[in-house]
Amino acid sequence: MTQSETTKQARVFNASDIENMPQRTRANFINALSGFKSANLVGTRNVNSVDNLAVVSSVFHVGAHPPLLGMIMRPHTVVRDTLQNIKDTGVYTINHICTDIVGPSHQTSARYPSEESEFVHTGLTPIDSTAVNAPYVIESNISLAMQVQDIQLIAINKTELVIGQIVEVVMKNNYVNDDGYVDIERANSVAISGLDAYHKTQSIDRFAYAKPGKAIKSIKL
Amino acid sequence: MTQSETTKQARVFNASDIENMPQRTRANFINALSGFKSANLVGTRNVNSVDNLAVVSSVFHVGAHPPLLGMIMRPHTVVRDTLQNIKDTGVYTINHICTDIVGPSHQTSARYPSEESEFVHTGLTPIDSTAVNAPYVIESNISLAMQVQDIQLIAINKTELVIGQIVEVVMKNNYVNDDGYVDIERANSVAISGLDAYHKTQSIDRFAYAKPGKAIKSIKL
Repeated sequence: MTQSETTKQARVFNASDIENMPQRTRANFINALSGFKSANLVGTRNVNSVDNLAVVSSVFHVGAHPPLLGMIMRPHTVVRDTLQNIKDTGVYTINHICTDIVGPSHQTSARYPSEESEFVHTGLTPIDSTAVNAPYVIESNISLAMQVQDIQLIAINKTELVIGQIVEVVMKNNYVNDDGYVDIERANSVAISGLDAYHKTQSIDRFAYAKPGKAIKSIKL
Repeated sequence: MTQSETTKQARVFNASDIENMPQRTRANFINALSGFKSANLVGTRNVNSVDNLAVVSSVFHVGAHPPLLGMIMRPHTVVRDTLQNIKDTGVYTINHICTDIVGPSHQTSARYPSEESEFVHTGLTPIDSTAVNAPYVIESNISLAMQVQDIQLIAINKTELVIGQIVEVVMKNNYVNDDGYVDIERANSVAISGLDAYHKTQSIDRFAYAKPGKAIKSIKL
């Protein structure tokens, strides 16, 4: 069978196919299946005032009022310092990864010692947030200051869900449309797939509020 | 000030700026700040065997072993039927929204009566999953069968976090690379920003596992 015939084949993976994958293969596979992920740098400061920066692809929307974001953190992994700092200080920043900093952003996932700042090692630039005791990333076009509201254990796999409230939003330019929509594509924010793939985006369409019996209607972006 | 001068201005929003936004404006604003979101159709079946389909932008990765995905659901909103069906049957499907079905996919967010199927109203096509009692979407290139593992209350805003385990993966073609990575861009999966904006993607790069003291290294996609 030729390569092009192979790729035309439907593929089905059942639970035991997944269970039997080598660990790294399964990690690549499962991490891509949720769809595209947000691409953020989480900035924290430890009790000795050392700044920490970590690429996080698990930030998600929890609610708009109050304005809440969640993120899943694995203890004992490379984000252990980030999680500890968040528990110690109760605050953190979320900074969109933009197209021109994907390389240094991914490099923050290297396992640097706790007392060395990823900012120093990657060339990304910290600037103090005036809202919280944590660093923003200057190179990011959209940065958020976050205050922890709750940390819930996800019992089934011993991960931790950090829920924070947005207390400040800083944008390098005005990316906000009249209706409140933030044009994150214009801000050059990127998306992640799997563990390590970065994508820029191209708008397809934006739709008006859908109603039964009415045809879907485009909103000009 | 001209428009181009306006958009060159940095913008800062503090907590009370956000609190004082009109509700719909704040919803648009906050929903875009987490970054790009996954774009999925969640398929369920009610106790009377009526199929339900709902666009969901809150699906996120929880863990690879066991393979777990989470999603945030608001009770009393348009996803109330989806949530009830999941509680009644313990299963659901997750189907990637692909570039050619963004319109009908968004239309599933219209508030149809519980006893009418969104499949009928949108023209999307159900097909029975053999793994779970819920419909897949034929037009989707990547579909997952899910078994509920846990439903946790997010106390702070009374939303519910549904955690499910992937028990089957169906792909229309073979999108899996040798290392397990699923090339969801090649599958035409899309990303969502805000409440209603759909984006296709363009790969920037994929990076090897990052290590201290080693330059970031590209993996050819």
